Amino acid sequence: MTQGGQFITFEGGEGAGKSTQVRLLADALERAGIEVVSTREPGGSAGAEAIRSLLVTGAVDRWDAHTEALLHTAARRDHLARTVWPALDRGAWVVCDRFADSTLAYQGYGHGLSKDFITGLTRLAVGDFKPDLTFVLDLTVEEGLRRAGGRGGAEDRYERMGTAFHERLRQGFLEIARNEPDRCAVIDASLAPEEVHQTVMRAVKGRLLGFCVP
Amino acid sequence: MTQGGQFITFEGGEGAGKSTQVRLLADALERAGIEVVSTREPGGSAGAEAIRSLLVTGAVDRWDAHTEALLHTAARRDHLARTVWPALDRGAWVVCDRFADSTLAYQGYGHGLSKDFITGLTRLAVGDFKPDLTFVLDLTVEEGLRRAGGRGGAEDRYERMGTAFHERLRQGFLEIARNEPDRCAVIDASLAPEEVHQTVMRAVKGRLLGFCVP
Repeated sequence: MTQGGQFITFEGGEGAGKSTQVRLLADALERAGIEVVSTREPGGSAGAEAIRSLLVTGAVDRWDAHTEALLHTAARRDHLARTVWPALDRGAWVVCDRFADSTLAYQGYGHGLSKDFITGLTRLAVGDFKPDLTFVLDLTVEEGLRRAGGRGGAEDRYERMGTAFHERLRQGFLEIARNEPDRCAVIDASLAPEEVHQTVMRAVKGRLLGFCVP
Repeated sequence: MTQGGQFITFEGGEGAGKSTQVRLLADALERAGIEVVSTREPGGSAGAEAIRSLLVTGAVDRWDAHTEALLHTAARRDHLARTVWPALDRGAWVVCDRFADSTLAYQGYGHGLSKDFITGLTRLAVGDFKPDLTFVLDLTVEEGLRRAGGRGGAEDRYERMGTAFHERLRQGFLEIARNEPDRCAVIDASLAPEEVHQTVMRAVKGRLLGFCVP
């Protein structure tokens, strides 16, 4: 596959401010004249959004961890095939709220599936494709769940999974970032959204060649 | 896992009479005093039935082949974890309309995914678990689609995939059976349902130790 654009992902636990940062970054890139596709996982295409509804609602034990990882991966494949790869091919930048790191964090570190299982599954579905740059928004579990609880809405299945689960997630994301420092940047998400955004912009300029960012 | 019961699957193209044969076999086993769970794929558990509705309705090109294989495998994992394995563990026999051979036939032989991809995915999701006995109901594509078309209903996404696709399916199922003759029995599905059933019963008696079948 030709990849003209850049693929930037935001990762982190519930309430870390990922969707806000996706919006702020997309706006900044668009002001610089870049075509941007803002998207999210699970979801981001018609099929993947239908799968999302199976994942983020309902009883906490609705799916076992293996099924959950398979559903997330199915949604990811649809999202890539229908939204992400076509956008990158035409030169657009894609800014995405969650990607494969979330499956490793949630179903691996969180639910205890082996790293080999998750990475094997991801490789089958997406090959060697990876983000060009990943931001891990890091926040204490207490603060993250407090913020996420304030959002309301029915998509709270993961939020209801308990503090110990969310602590494993947080440590998982930090370990993922330590293992791939060239791809991942950890940002303190307790800062104000505009401060987080400025850190994001510095990293985008510094790591993605500095071209066309104001 | 302890496996007390026996796991018997029916495979074949559209209209081959699988659901009829599942019912006739289950009835016969029950008359012999065996606890039987009759089930189907995709489906057979609450979660898998929700995934099924994404797979068997809608546009033919709704999913790419990789996503489709992932969704079938997610449904399979849920079905095994919630329905099949608990039933076998308590000593029940499970009679199932379609299983993993269908994924290899439809997404592999039919849609052209590699056998390595399908078998790798299946191994990740279900390990080494296999049916004790599989019946491949073989029928010409023309006759199968004629029968399936007569059923009506909205679950016709696969039926609408074209004759060449269904011919690849048929040859795929036959090759699967040739590769695993100890597990698979091919039956001519153009015979009357009761004749097919008698052949099924002879194979069950002959291959599954002959115990408790009248």
